[in-house]
Amino acid sequence: MEVLLTGFEPFDGQRTNPSWDAAVAVRPTGYTLATLQLPCVFDESLRVLENALSTHRYDVVISVGQAGGRPNITPERVAVNLNDARIPDNAGNQPVDTPVVPHAPTAYFSTLPVKACTAALTAAGIPAAVSHTAGAFVCNHVFYGLMHLVATEHPHLRAGFVHVPFTPDQTQDAPSLPLSTTAQALDLIIRTTLETSQDLHTPTGTLH
Amino acid sequence: MEVLLTGFEPFDGQRTNPSWDAAVAVRPTGYTLATLQLPCVFDESLRVLENALSTHRYDVVISVGQAGGRPNITPERVAVNLNDARIPDNAGNQPVDTPVVPHAPTAYFSTLPVKACTAALTAAGIPAAVSHTAGAFVCNHVFYGLMHLVATEHPHLRAGFVHVPFTPDQTQDAPSLPLSTTAQALDLIIRTTLETSQDLHTPTGTLH
Amino acid sequence: MEVLLTGFEPFDGQRTNPSWDAAVAVRPTGYTLATLQLPCVFDESLRVLENALSTHRYDVVISVGQAGGRPNITPERVAVNLNDARIPDNAGNQPVDTPVVPHAPTAYFSTLPVKACTAALTAAGIPAAVSHTAGAFVCNHVFYGLMHLVATEHPHLRAGFVHVPFTPDQTQDAPSLPLSTTAQALDLIIRTTLETSQDLHTPTGTLH
Amino acid sequence: MEVLLTGFEPFDGQRTNPSWDAAVAVRPTGYTLATLQLPCVFDESLRVLENALSTHRYDVVISVGQAGGRPNITPERVAVNLNDARIPDNAGNQPVDTPVVPHAPTAYFSTLPVKACTAALTAAGIPAAVSHTAGAFVCNHVFYGLMHLVATEHPHLRAGFVHVPFTPDQTQDAPSLPLSTTAQALDLIIRTTLETSQDLHTPTGTLH
Repeated sequence: MEVLLTGFEPFDGQRTNPSWDAAVAVRPTGYTLATLQLPCVFDESLRVLENALSTHRYDVVISVGQAGGRPNITPERVAVNLNDARIPDNAGNQPVDTPVVPHAPTAYFSTLPVKACTAALTAAGIPAAVSHTAGAFVCNHVFYGLMHLVATEHPHLRAGFVHVPFTPDQTQDAPSLPLSTTAQALDLIIRTTLETSQDLHTPTGTLH
Repeated sequence: MEVLLTGFEPFDGQRTNPSWDAAVAVRPTGYTLATLQLPCVFDESLRVLENALSTHRYDVVISVGQAGGRPNITPERVAVNLNDARIPDNAGNQPVDTPVVPHAPTAYFSTLPVKACTAALTAAGIPAAVSHTAGAFVCNHVFYGLMHLVATEHPHLRAGFVHVPFTPDQTQDAPSLPLSTTAQALDLIIRTTLETSQDLHTPTGTLH
Repeated sequence: MEVLLTGFEPFDGQRTNPSWDAAVAVRPTGYTLATLQLPCVFDESLRVLENALSTHRYDVVISVGQAGGRPNITPERVAVNLNDARIPDNAGNQPVDTPVVPHAPTAYFSTLPVKACTAALTAAGIPAAVSHTAGAFVCNHVFYGLMHLVATEHPHLRAGFVHVPFTPDQTQDAPSLPLSTTAQALDLIIRTTLETSQDLHTPTGTLH
Repeated sequence: MEVLLTGFEPFDGQRTNPSWDAAVAVRPTGYTLATLQLPCVFDESLRVLENALSTHRYDVVISVGQAGGRPNITPERVAVNLNDARIPDNAGNQPVDTPVVPHAPTAYFSTLPVKACTAALTAAGIPAAVSHTAGAFVCNHVFYGLMHLVATEHPHLRAGFVHVPFTPDQTQDAPSLPLSTTAQALDLIIRTTLETSQDLHTPTGTLH
């Protein structure tokens, strides 16, 4: 099985981005792994991703992003067709209330088994929870664009997005995880996806 | 202008629900206000709401729910077509991974001016932020059902959902707000909605 | 009864400090109130406070400081004889591991009725909790210095420290309270102190 | 070098306590380790600890406790002479506003190199921060009692307290760490203590 894992370059004044550092630290076990760094730039990130998908056939694509302040590894459940950038991206773009893809659906669900992945992480002693928002910045942009590509051009592909916490060197007060834990989590998410055809039927929804 | 404000009955072991207590504490200024308590029950909550909308013509409908742990008054931006109940509702139902409305869109955006409302609250010294998830419990269920009713039967209606924090008596450690502040916030949201035809073009999106 | 309420000037890049803005917004009811702004500077803050206490006889002195990120009004229980400045103060001083007062006790308890104050705030619908650390920056410095002055020179004085949350304009994500709520809280803390000779015997300790 | 590491039995409705589970998971490297489980009971916990210290000569004693909700491994800096139990302990005791040791100092500082330990943890990619409050429950009780024993009977002993986060199975929303990370952290704290005669002179104080 061929898996593509994408991470982002650093943004928002950070010198590192655990989404990329963890992606390249994954030691694949039982699958073939390609990694791809995406620029933290609206549109350009999606062009880089689309190009990768058009030149090689992957079975699973998982995009990973940094969620500074979250304590858990969070597989995202839903991507929204909205750009609303609180800060400029790395190229200075700051789209406000534009669609990721004009005239496309308001939202897409992930096609990863987000519940099985979360259960596998928790069973391995790794903090994890399903999330219902990827925000409205470049992470959600890539997630939505990826799911639109799946819906329109790559129907065989299983795809989704995972947010990961800061590493300890990035923060003084906010929650964080060792990079090795995050890398281990990404491998476990990939393996769980490859081994799971039907997601678990367990409640993981948030109350609000 | 005729406004309907809904709040919920208590749930999850709480004895009060600030969404209802604040709704009935609103002193309307320059509009006519009706309040309606919804049961914290899947489907039945939407039947009660649908019945109210079918028997009286409102200009604005705002549903309000409790978001225990949030520090801000949060106008919600997007409703998702998903029920995934972590806990049973007040009638013992616990739907997992069912749609709110079968064969309907994955999500709807609020048609309230969520940015103008948030700006008005902040200008009044009240903690506020736009939220991009209403969860997957009865709050999101009502929000999605409401927006679907607007989309399919009440196109003139401006509608949306607002989550409010705990009151101080509900928690020892979590953020909370005085009930009078929350009631003042709801009045301000209503007035801002009535006075705003075009929402602000300012970034309020979260990074994740 | 004569009450002195001190607040701080802004620090850490903020343009306002709710401890001062709320102090001057208090409308005293049944007592005489003096307010005093302290510089956010080690030692100089205590000289200003000591001078005020030596030139006028107060019955109660309450110092107030900003606790960015806390959701509650927090009467502090214990002051520690330690300066450990994570950031420079407003004069560029950054003491590390020095005592506030050499050869003095490791800590002093507040002599305010912190439990009665917290109970009064909660009863008024205002978020409140007793805190067991005022940190190691200028707030704790002033609190310790004040209690040392009480212990050594002003034994009749009832004194303590209260931390207050951000106002909504100071933050996008952190908890905050309306300034009017914080001002109301300070008045209530003063009145409760004046009316309470023996603090409540209720548990308010944190588990960690 | 002989090291004693204590952890607690579960409390507050939890079925496990990571302070104990991590303590027994430590694989000592270059020192001799004894582990001791303390009951989560006022006074009795200190009797068990005192007995251990009187029957064997240790060089270092570190007590460890669970701090549910904290994201970091937190070496504690100061113990306070105060019991104020929000909940009953495991024997049903609920002391309110009693001293740990009557007529003893208000507080003691840890004699562990808390800054060197925190720096070593962060350098190893483990979330860590110095804390300035151990609360007012059994953790602070044991910490204060331990430091009083050091001050009065075991002056050669280096001693202190470390709070550790939940493990992922204990919580759905709160921050947590893998147990293996916490065990690795405890070993690193012990080794750093043994290798450090003079603590670092770096600021780690909190602002409030």
